[in-house]
Amino acid sequence: MATAKKYRLAQIVERFGGEVIGNPQTPVSQVAALEHARAQHISFLSHGKYRRQLAGTQAGAVILGKADSQLTQLPRIICDNPYLYFAKVSSLFNPPQVAVPGVHRTAVVERGALVPDSASVGAGAYIGRRVKLGKGVAIGAACCIGDGVEIGAASTLDARVTVYAGCRLGRRVVVHSGAVIGADGFGIAMEDGNWLKIPQIGGVSIGDDVEIGANTCIDRGTLEDTVIEDGVKLDNLIQIGHNVHVGAHTAIAGCTGIAGSTRIGKYCMIGGAANIVGHLDIADRVIIHAAAVVTKSIRKAGAYGGHPAEDSRSWAQHTAKVRNLDSLLERLRAIEQRLSTQEKKI
Amino acid sequence: MATAKKYRLAQIVERFGGEVIGNPQTPVSQVAALEHARAQHISFLSHGKYRRQLAGTQAGAVILGKADSQLTQLPRIICDNPYLYFAKVSSLFNPPQVAVPGVHRTAVVERGALVPDSASVGAGAYIGRRVKLGKGVAIGAACCIGDGVEIGAASTLDARVTVYAGCRLGRRVVVHSGAVIGADGFGIAMEDGNWLKIPQIGGVSIGDDVEIGANTCIDRGTLEDTVIEDGVKLDNLIQIGHNVHVGAHTAIAGCTGIAGSTRIGKYCMIGGAANIVGHLDIADRVIIHAAAVVTKSIRKAGAYGGHPAEDSRSWAQHTAKVRNLDSLLERLRAIEQRLSTQEKKI
Amino acid sequence: MATAKKYRLAQIVERFGGEVIGNPQTPVSQVAALEHARAQHISFLSHGKYRRQLAGTQAGAVILGKADSQLTQLPRIICDNPYLYFAKVSSLFNPPQVAVPGVHRTAVVERGALVPDSASVGAGAYIGRRVKLGKGVAIGAACCIGDGVEIGAASTLDARVTVYAGCRLGRRVVVHSGAVIGADGFGIAMEDGNWLKIPQIGGVSIGDDVEIGANTCIDRGTLEDTVIEDGVKLDNLIQIGHNVHVGAHTAIAGCTGIAGSTRIGKYCMIGGAANIVGHLDIADRVIIHAAAVVTKSIRKAGAYGGHPAEDSRSWAQHTAKVRNLDSLLERLRAIEQRLSTQEKKI
Repeated sequence: MATAKKYRLAQIVERFGGEVIGNPQTPVSQVAALEHARAQHISFLSHGKYRRQLAGTQAGAVILGKADSQLTQLPRIICDNPYLYFAKVSSLFNPPQVAVPGVHRTAVVERGALVPDSASVGAGAYIGRRVKLGKGVAIGAACCIGDGVEIGAASTLDARVTVYAGCRLGRRVVVHSGAVIGADGFGIAMEDGNWLKIPQIGGVSIGDDVEIGANTCIDRGTLEDTVIEDGVKLDNLIQIGHNVHVGAHTAIAGCTGIAGSTRIGKYCMIGGAANIVGHLDIADRVIIHAAAVVTKSIRKAGAYGGHPAEDSRSWAQHTAKVRNLDSLLERLRAIEQRLSTQEKKI
Repeated sequence: MATAKKYRLAQIVERFGGEVIGNPQTPVSQVAALEHARAQHISFLSHGKYRRQLAGTQAGAVILGKADSQLTQLPRIICDNPYLYFAKVSSLFNPPQVAVPGVHRTAVVERGALVPDSASVGAGAYIGRRVKLGKGVAIGAACCIGDGVEIGAASTLDARVTVYAGCRLGRRVVVHSGAVIGADGFGIAMEDGNWLKIPQIGGVSIGDDVEIGANTCIDRGTLEDTVIEDGVKLDNLIQIGHNVHVGAHTAIAGCTGIAGSTRIGKYCMIGGAANIVGHLDIADRVIIHAAAVVTKSIRKAGAYGGHPAEDSRSWAQHTAKVRNLDSLLERLRAIEQRLSTQEKKI
Repeated sequence: MATAKKYRLAQIVERFGGEVIGNPQTPVSQVAALEHARAQHISFLSHGKYRRQLAGTQAGAVILGKADSQLTQLPRIICDNPYLYFAKVSSLFNPPQVAVPGVHRTAVVERGALVPDSASVGAGAYIGRRVKLGKGVAIGAACCIGDGVEIGAASTLDARVTVYAGCRLGRRVVVHSGAVIGADGFGIAMEDGNWLKIPQIGGVSIGDDVEIGANTCIDRGTLEDTVIEDGVKLDNLIQIGHNVHVGAHTAIAGCTGIAGSTRIGKYCMIGGAANIVGHLDIADRVIIHAAAVVTKSIRKAGAYGGHPAEDSRSWAQHTAKVRNLDSLLERLRAIEQRLSTQEKKI
């Protein structure tokens, strides 16, 4: 996936800021990890534990934080946030691949669908009636796009994505393979020993710049839309229940489940395999640790973890205390001993 | 997805029972939530916390429980269970969409497959040899149905479902996109440093009126069938291991995993992201809380939670006690203090 | 799926070792569980709790361990490990089905792809440019294989598998339906309130004899490959993050998540629904219990469980102590009582 295009360090700092130490004409054409980099690569140091690798790297240049600027003699770019800077440089060398426009001969486009010339529809993809694709939308092979779906400009659906009828995706949305958007929510009501299915007549509304991971599911709403706001990033194998609302720029790691009707705030960061039960409110800028089980609403920004979840500090203390129950029992036994001794004396 | 068909309140109570207060000729044509409803909508109140929304609703009519019958002046239907009643009314306005019969020109139907005229096979679907589809079965786009599969009348498979060879589905089964039915169970045996694969020669047997969520997996059995009885409802991203038996009318929420050879009773309700280890027996009418980790058989109806799971009441008490260990330590310190004081006195 | 081919017990022990007691000419043609076996079946006893079923079985023959050799009068094979022996016999009766070679007329094979005559490409499958399939590779219906993918000889991809561009699979790999190999890892960096996507330019490298379950996801690496070594067995709905390294012959049960850049050793056994956070090192031969939440590196072989995970023995003790807090409180109350009594006396 490497491109042959070269940039000189001077050109890179012109784009992204920072300062060059060493030869600003040093050419680089790709990013690489410190231990595997060669002369044509630019690498980076974002964590102290990789300093030893910096010493031995064969990279042509490196990206460093200010405090680390003298750790090497290599040509280098000094900046505030080497990880972020690396991300930008990597994006420069590895721009998203643009699909070739056109509808594959084996794709099926139903009547009334709007597929602009700039869009791409892959082999075996199915585009339902009245679907509207924006400019430059790329629909991967074997995707199934239901009737009336709208997908904003420059969005990309990788192979084998399902979008059910009536769902709406914003611009520059990226959906990875196997994701399912808009299946019925889990709405059932018990009557005389049988579950009655509750029609799920809402849809799914997804904002701009959202990324949705492989095999992730976002259910349609019961009456209104399930909503994923702008800039939300969802990893793989996530379950978003019906009527859930995920606030802008929240990032959720893989295997997490969010049950129906829960509202997640903006700029939250939710660890992998977390579980958030239904009908809760989670405030903005809440951090939820991996595998936390959230059973109550969280009204205050901060970090939370455990099963059931509590604030991270309490969780750490409670865990430590449980693991220290031995010493507590020891103290108890000592007290009982002393007490017996005393009782005999009196 | 709204239909234009109107019903008057009088017609609705004629079908579903209950009593009209206000004008029985009030026409409604769709359901909606209290806060978004307009004149053409009928809404409902199933939980006290939405009473304020009832006061402000612009719905044309509402469905209320007996105790709430005087909370509004709107035309209203009074019934025992407003949520269930709403489910029925919603089903009336939103009947399941019936696929147009016929085999899409891009679908592949192998020889010996039985596809009745009333069935529908979507674009790019694959129907293996000797498959038997019942009347009115709808197979979505890009589904892959293995050799010898049988699917009962009026069942619906949404787009991109896999059913492996030899599995059997009952009548009126609904399977959502991405589900995989009948992949090999995880059967391996170690020999001299290598895992030997154990053939999985059982199938999957699914009863009538079962619903299977998006990207859910049900493995085939090792020797006999994995069994999902009538009326079971499975949410998204659930893993059902080989040889598992799920009793009739049990409902399982998303992200739950049930390991091999476990038997789940009838009418159980299993929360999201629960994990039930293999070779257990779970009684009828057991409720398992979200994210519970069940490591032992459960012989008695009731509610269970925690990691490892115990009965809900014990779990709540143990959690509370752990969180109260501070005060316990405080008491311990106080005792030690008093004891030292005493020891000095004597 | 049964075959009609018969073997006599004498022929079986000639292949797999062990000793026949009873008529060595007894013919059997399939394996079955003790309770369902008939005269043509050979069954097995691998666990004491099924001894009662042995007494009542109608099997034609059984496989028993040495200690159990006299528990029945049926013709029988005596061996060291009846479960493993059964696995071999079952493989004999149920060899993997070989797909008919050839490219289905509805499949799409892009130019430059290498598809040997011995390979099979199913209906609607998509094979990208420069893909290289080894001899006897079977690509199921509706699979999507990205540009430049290499798949080693005798590997099988079931229906609806995605392999992204540039990933490499070894020989005799089995991938179940819905798996997604090589989607972008979850790499994002925050800048001024927006998440910047970090290009994922590594691939996925999968060794020989690996099995990958239904709807499991393995993300591509950020800079280098995500690596799954030889003989690894992955169950369904597993998430393997970017840059993860799974050592040879490790087996991982369903619903488990392994976050980015974690290294798992060889011959580990990881229970279902476990969660291992990112950037950890897990030693060889580590056993992780179902639903364990691993938050720290594990340097030593052994068994671990709990949330957060600790060694199994400690976990069991801590759990027991928490559940015994009642008696601890009782003792505390008794002490306080005795102390008060004493204090009054003095």
